Amino acid sequence: MTDARTRIEDFLADYAHAIDDDRLDEWPDFFTADGVYQITTHENYAAGRPIGILFCEGRGMMTDRVRAMREANIFEPHRYCHLLSRPRIEADGPDAYRVRTNFTVVRTMQNGDAGLFVSGSYRDRIVFAAGAPKLKERYVILDSRRVDILIVYPI
Amino acid sequence: MTDARTRIEDFLADYAHAIDDDRLDEWPDFFTADGVYQITTHENYAAGRPIGILFCEGRGMMTDRVRAMREANIFEPHRYCHLLSRPRIEADGPDAYRVRTNFTVVRTMQNGDAGLFVSGSYRDRIVFAAGAPKLKERYVILDSRRVDILIVYPI
Amino acid sequence: MTDARTRIEDFLADYAHAIDDDRLDEWPDFFTADGVYQITTHENYAAGRPIGILFCEGRGMMTDRVRAMREANIFEPHRYCHLLSRPRIEADGPDAYRVRTNFTVVRTMQNGDAGLFVSGSYRDRIVFAAGAPKLKERYVILDSRRVDILIVYPI
Repeated sequence: MTDARTRIEDFLADYAHAIDDDRLDEWPDFFTADGVYQITTHENYAAGRPIGILFCEGRGMMTDRVRAMREANIFEPHRYCHLLSRPRIEADGPDAYRVRTNFTVVRTMQNGDAGLFVSGSYRDRIVFAAGAPKLKERYVILDSRRVDILIVYPI
Repeated sequence: MTDARTRIEDFLADYAHAIDDDRLDEWPDFFTADGVYQITTHENYAAGRPIGILFCEGRGMMTDRVRAMREANIFEPHRYCHLLSRPRIEADGPDAYRVRTNFTVVRTMQNGDAGLFVSGSYRDRIVFAAGAPKLKERYVILDSRRVDILIVYPI
Repeated sequence: MTDARTRIEDFLADYAHAIDDDRLDEWPDFFTADGVYQITTHENYAAGRPIGILFCEGRGMMTDRVRAMREANIFEPHRYCHLLSRPRIEADGPDAYRVRTNFTVVRTMQNGDAGLFVSGSYRDRIVFAAGAPKLKERYVILDSRRVDILIVYPI
């Protein structure tokens, strides 16, 4: 029997790999149907400002966003490589956990240019539904407020 | 019952998060009362030179350093984001462990400039006192000898 | 009794530390006698192209390569610092595992210049022989095709 930590850590790695591999269609399915995804800066987060860089509420909005990226947006192709530090996991009710995970993302452009893109931390609420972990909330707190306007893929 | 590895890994993550969150007052408490904290370079460490970039012996010196930073020093505000690789843990006597952990720190300045600040490894001696892990020794071995003179926060 | 995950994770950390510490003589011993080591780019890997940046088949070729580096090659000394994200481990037959691990490597030159060198993922096949994990295959998939021609040390 695999314990909650192992399953949460595998889940976080799977999320990262799905994006790194450009399997974006799988992205909404990491969330509960009513899951919330928000990218914001440390500055706004610390000040309690509701303003974020990106906000999705519910899997439908996420699916729309992926479709828009696939169909409409024009941008230079690039790849991400997520690195995650150890997740700090705290129980938060039955089958629910608060999880904080520091991360960096390296971005590689099609011409081969590569560099540190963003750093920050995930602040997640993860629930187990039918035995599988899902994101009820993922706040992506970026360290820098100077973010390349080209945040196209989810982080 | 949580095992030693889990508690050590959570402890290392908590240390990193305390600094990343600018909760520096908590920093000395990660050490034993007589704990040693030293930042040095790989070059000096490999040559067995006692010269370091920073040396604190005992919680008192650490508390003084935090107070000096808070009260006296003038520097541009910045944030750290620690990323830790897997700690290699070896038992070293009863309730004591030698731990090596590779790390990188991304530094973000107030104006939003961000970049890789330092990389290296922690070489720790961790002891369990009253069931809680504490640093008896933390050697911070930086890869580069060209370190920005502005090492203000602990690493 | 230590479980397979713990032993695999320690093994991956040991591999990284051996290279970071310039203990290259130990490198071939992380592989089975017929082990395969290949560095390639994501672009070639995704296209199924057999072309790689470096290819070693069997411990003998690896030992030769280390000897050549030690005796013949002329290059500026440098150090690596590997950071590994969580390995995703899947059983693949008895005592065998497929493992994917995202990584970054920071390179520090002798003059102190440091920076992100490469990012990518390891795609490993690990087998347990006489109770010890060994690499039967290690594919090093680099994100960028623009790699500094000076890949001297194994990654």
